[in-house]
Amino acid sequence: MPPAPAPKHPRVKKFTVAGCELCEAAPVGVLWQDSFCRVVAVGDADYPGTCRVILDRHAGEMTDLTPAERSRLMKVVFATESALRVVARPDKINLASLGNAVPHLHWHVIPRYFDDRHFPRSIWAQPVRSPRRHRAPDRRALARKLKALLGDA
Amino acid sequence: MPPAPAPKHPRVKKFTVAGCELCEAAPVGVLWQDSFCRVVAVGDADYPGTCRVILDRHAGEMTDLTPAERSRLMKVVFATESALRVVARPDKINLASLGNAVPHLHWHVIPRYFDDRHFPRSIWAQPVRSPRRHRAPDRRALARKLKALLGDA
Repeated sequence: MPPAPAPKHPRVKKFTVAGCELCEAAPVGVLWQDSFCRVVAVGDADYPGTCRVILDRHAGEMTDLTPAERSRLMKVVFATESALRVVARPDKINLASLGNAVPHLHWHVIPRYFDDRHFPRSIWAQPVRSPRRHRAPDRRALARKLKALLGDA
Repeated sequence: MPPAPAPKHPRVKKFTVAGCELCEAAPVGVLWQDSFCRVVAVGDADYPGTCRVILDRHAGEMTDLTPAERSRLMKVVFATESALRVVARPDKINLASLGNAVPHLHWHVIPRYFDDRHFPRSIWAQPVRSPRRHRAPDRRALARKLKALLGDA
């Protein structure tokens, strides 16, 4: 019997790409999720409270989504911003969708403080000081706030 | 006659803050604008084609806007992304709303190339190479594409 033909492309199931860190990520730190995206708490000691909003399927750019999907994803990003403003009381919020290393749509929602390691620079810049560590916001409080803003998944 | 009372706050007109770089910016490099926001071409030699979408009035965070205003601003951000993808043909788009130095809502829409000065890092990180300079996209082509996507202001 001849060997099975090699797969034509590396997709292991619809919209999922083998080897993509976010397609294959274990569900750790999930604060809220539905069938479209998830909000994950990132355990960054310098940036307590930082969340990522991760699209479930593999897509690289916001304009690869339909306008309705873009709105749906941004609604979750802005709910995450709202929850962080209430629970973590930061001095500023930073929002970014970069995806250079992992081109699978994900939004960074980052609480910033005037005395954090990089302020007023971006968190990806050279640090400007030793950070005064802020207490990590309570993940259960963030999850409750997201549920209140977005409903049950 | 007693002196006029000092103003209670530094606002010089409704929603405009004296001393804010973006409230007071001259209208340079404008590709598209309406009464709500403007798209401006940033003349960055390392990052040709980089645009900023700047809210007209002074507000610091996306969640300071109403949901309808957030959608309106994001529609312009995504139209800018679309225009840059067509005209500048980048390898990736980066979107960011930071505002740490200038807390007046503005979005960075940045075409990225695999061989640019920082890829795959953010443009705010330490550079990883001498850049291969990409040709700046034609501003008139960007303006035409924005007008096609967003209509006349």
